[in-house]
Amino acid sequence: MKIGGRHYRTIWPVAGGRAVEIIDQTELPHRFVTKELRSAGEAARAIKVMEVRGAPLIGATAAYGLAMALRADASDRALGEAIELLARQRPTAVNLRWALEEMRKVVAPLSPSRRADAAWAKAGAIADDDVATCRRIGEHGLGLIRTIAERNGGRPVNILTHCNAGWIACVDWGTATAPIYMAHDAGIPVHVWVDETRPRNQGASLTAFELGSHGVPYHVIVENAGGHYMQRGQVDLVLVGTDRVTRRGDVANKIGTYLKALAARDTGVPFYVALPHSTIDWSLEGGFAIEIEERSEDEVLRMTGRLPDKSVATVEIAAPGARAANPAFDVTPARLVTGFITERGVAEASLKGLLSLYPERA
Amino acid sequence: MKIGGRHYRTIWPVAGGRAVEIIDQTELPHRFVTKELRSAGEAARAIKVMEVRGAPLIGATAAYGLAMALRADASDRALGEAIELLARQRPTAVNLRWALEEMRKVVAPLSPSRRADAAWAKAGAIADDDVATCRRIGEHGLGLIRTIAERNGGRPVNILTHCNAGWIACVDWGTATAPIYMAHDAGIPVHVWVDETRPRNQGASLTAFELGSHGVPYHVIVENAGGHYMQRGQVDLVLVGTDRVTRRGDVANKIGTYLKALAARDTGVPFYVALPHSTIDWSLEGGFAIEIEERSEDEVLRMTGRLPDKSVATVEIAAPGARAANPAFDVTPARLVTGFITERGVAEASLKGLLSLYPERA
Repeated sequence: MKIGGRHYRTIWPVAGGRAVEIIDQTELPHRFVTKELRSAGEAARAIKVMEVRGAPLIGATAAYGLAMALRADASDRALGEAIELLARQRPTAVNLRWALEEMRKVVAPLSPSRRADAAWAKAGAIADDDVATCRRIGEHGLGLIRTIAERNGGRPVNILTHCNAGWIACVDWGTATAPIYMAHDAGIPVHVWVDETRPRNQGASLTAFELGSHGVPYHVIVENAGGHYMQRGQVDLVLVGTDRVTRRGDVANKIGTYLKALAARDTGVPFYVALPHSTIDWSLEGGFAIEIEERSEDEVLRMTGRLPDKSVATVEIAAPGARAANPAFDVTPARLVTGFITERGVAEASLKGLLSLYPERA
Repeated sequence: MKIGGRHYRTIWPVAGGRAVEIIDQTELPHRFVTKELRSAGEAARAIKVMEVRGAPLIGATAAYGLAMALRADASDRALGEAIELLARQRPTAVNLRWALEEMRKVVAPLSPSRRADAAWAKAGAIADDDVATCRRIGEHGLGLIRTIAERNGGRPVNILTHCNAGWIACVDWGTATAPIYMAHDAGIPVHVWVDETRPRNQGASLTAFELGSHGVPYHVIVENAGGHYMQRGQVDLVLVGTDRVTRRGDVANKIGTYLKALAARDTGVPFYVALPHSTIDWSLEGGFAIEIEERSEDEVLRMTGRLPDKSVATVEIAAPGARAANPAFDVTPARLVTGFITERGVAEASLKGLLSLYPERA
């Protein structure tokens, strides 16, 4: 997608295949800064501190990280250690482990001398595949938006989204945002309610940044407001991404997703989850077995923003001495999800629905 | 309640009955500042900019404001104009209009020369009545907490609260917090999940400040996290205040309350609303007729806090150019409310339940 008229992906190879460059998302929306990652350790750190975030993007970053590790040492031991290092940086999103497993399958059978080049090529393929996957998610989701637009008779389609499942969470296009961009580009009037998404404010910072850059109309709202707008008929569709979907269709996503799904169910608003195949955890039946990452209380107690002189500062916002708890994800049971949008099409949120799209998993 | 060992109310008369002093809540939790209000205009402004907030406290402030207006001019016209001025500062909480109506009933029949003293006395009585009312709410709510504590067998009672329905929202004790303070003082182990309450963060700033000052264990959480903790069995009771309850038991309260009520219903957690008699709007059947205040988008887009040098600064937190929408309240249908706790006892959230406590309204 474009920033200031220039096309960007969120991660791209540099230095003749020895490093990658990323958009440092911890600086957004206050500063646009790119950064080189030159080793598996730097890639691991970027995932941990969320310079890169979003389930598909951390998968792609891990893949490149593994390729960089193999440039330094392509032994079996180094391969195993690099996979272990990268996998443990974030526990909830399954794409991280999926991408590393895909890499292992390609490089493990090769002799060490051939591993680095093969790994680099495979990491590039994972990134390219993510772009194509998100484009197809967009095309399938576009159909849903078009149907609502026809029913609305000219009134904009109001879409509520939570966190950032945008192109900046992926390699390009995004998952939940891909249908929105395509609808906007197709001339369908859309308006997005952007959940702020405390504590890290990925909605107010990243999704608002993305939508604004692309010219899609939106308003930022606090998490609290979504139910109110659904009650008043001002939301036509809820569209979110996910960090892991289980066999039966339970959805782990950014903390607070469950509350929006409840409101959607209570008010009759369709609630769709957009995801690539790599986000499905076929090994897990129920969502409550997914490990929920507990992050630093500082994310709740402090907030970063721009001072009047445009310098960036972090302020303590809570009562002095306050303690906080900070679970990063929650689980939305499949019963609250209207459907999934994947690169293969739209299906109900159940094992039956998932198998209708991925019959090879039966 | 106590701050730094000294007992405070949130509003008290000074200057021999010609002014009142308040705790300026816009400065909390960063600075503890008190401020004199010397006229109806100053009282109106304090209500508007939320130097005083919370349904019971804005009622008491309006009552004192009217008394100050009558010190300056006690004519029928001045009485009418002052009531109109004060009433229009906040649309949602019914206590504001209730307090002004109580004042009018007392002063309107009197000759102008006797109005100011009578108004001052009545304003004081409204404030004192609020303290007594909150104390009784606390006693009735304590019974609920005690029952849960007995069932828990020593495990702390986990109570989730939203916004600030604490003593600082009232004159003393608070509505939703009164049972918590009484349980803590009675030696019952309690732990409070304090919803941050974006956009104005009354939870992280005011409720955390109150509970911390009193020594009640708590953790601040972002709005998003409440449903997760309820799903995991880590919430025994949701206890909130309200700005207006209708005849059939619909509840207008701080934006986001509806989402917590949905989660409580979905997970089987009891959801109670604490309120004084003055918060019941007997003239209204359904909650969706209540006017919902739309506040400035700046409350969403900016955040105030303490810089490392302890000075207070406001930062812009969203993407540059972002627009926001900011509804301040939502409506929780009676069907989602387990019960009401008032100064007269505990009852179901319905006209039948309300009339069981207030049979004189039948």
